[in-house]
Amino acid sequence: MTEHLLRPDEKTLDRDLRNDAQIEFIGVIHTPFKTRDDCPRQGRHDGPDCVIEINPEWAEALTGIDGFPYLDVLYWLHESRRDLIHQNRKSDRGPRGTFSLRSPVRPNPIGLSKVVLVKRDGPRLIVRGLDCLDGTPLVDIKPDKCLRSPQADPHD
Amino acid sequence: MTEHLLRPDEKTLDRDLRNDAQIEFIGVIHTPFKTRDDCPRQGRHDGPDCVIEINPEWAEALTGIDGFPYLDVLYWLHESRRDLIHQNRKSDRGPRGTFSLRSPVRPNPIGLSKVVLVKRDGPRLIVRGLDCLDGTPLVDIKPDKCLRSPQADPHD
Repeated sequence: MTEHLLRPDEKTLDRDLRNDAQIEFIGVIHTPFKTRDDCPRQGRHDGPDCVIEINPEWAEALTGIDGFPYLDVLYWLHESRRDLIHQNRKSDRGPRGTFSLRSPVRPNPIGLSKVVLVKRDGPRLIVRGLDCLDGTPLVDIKPDKCLRSPQADPHD
Repeated sequence: MTEHLLRPDEKTLDRDLRNDAQIEFIGVIHTPFKTRDDCPRQGRHDGPDCVIEINPEWAEALTGIDGFPYLDVLYWLHESRRDLIHQNRKSDRGPRGTFSLRSPVRPNPIGLSKVVLVKRDGPRLIVRGLDCLDGTPLVDIKPDKCLRSPQADPHD
């Protein structure tokens, strides 16, 4: 994780994290956001096109995804520290608990955005609504659970 | 992962998964669902009360969560196999790609539900809308991004 300095009244865990489960990255996300300052605080569906590129061996697992207008995308916030219990964000008037924020700083730094699927191009998905850095590792893609295509039930 | 037998036309990855990142479980989820057959295909906001129990050292990170009516909950589907590229679900008429399903079987078996926060009781959250087995390990809790409490912006 990238070090960031603690602000006043922030509180951290005082041990290293365990390895209870393992993640394998399944692709990479390309966005126009090259630095953390470039990233919007949340993605917008009228924001820029971004590209989700699936590793070749998982590309066939995209079969059928074209029918879904919205997707839940999970990604690994690889530059985040993970040990903050209380965070003191610039715009707040005092520290707040990590689980009451969508900050990238969290014990398991998994980002989550609901995106619009613009189109599929082989192993690449063009989407709108992401907020993450260019080069962010991909963890999962799920069809949105509210909007189903007429021919497919994502819960099967 | 639990073994499950392959159905016709299912396709798997032919290698072991890498360890690209590590998850630390931060709590456990208690539900009335004791077997996979008991689990609903998706949680319902009028479903039974479930209890999210945060490990003591992370309990302070819940500060401020009471103001949010809805939460995104991420959990580790610890009984799922992870190597299926195509899945042939009982109710389908042919195999489909893993990323076009919300099945628990996926390369990184992370479940995601938007739940209603009924109340907080110290390190425990009473919620409705979960679909997972009793004893499922907890990965993350985020305030819902659409509905913000008047006094707090979860994106800060």
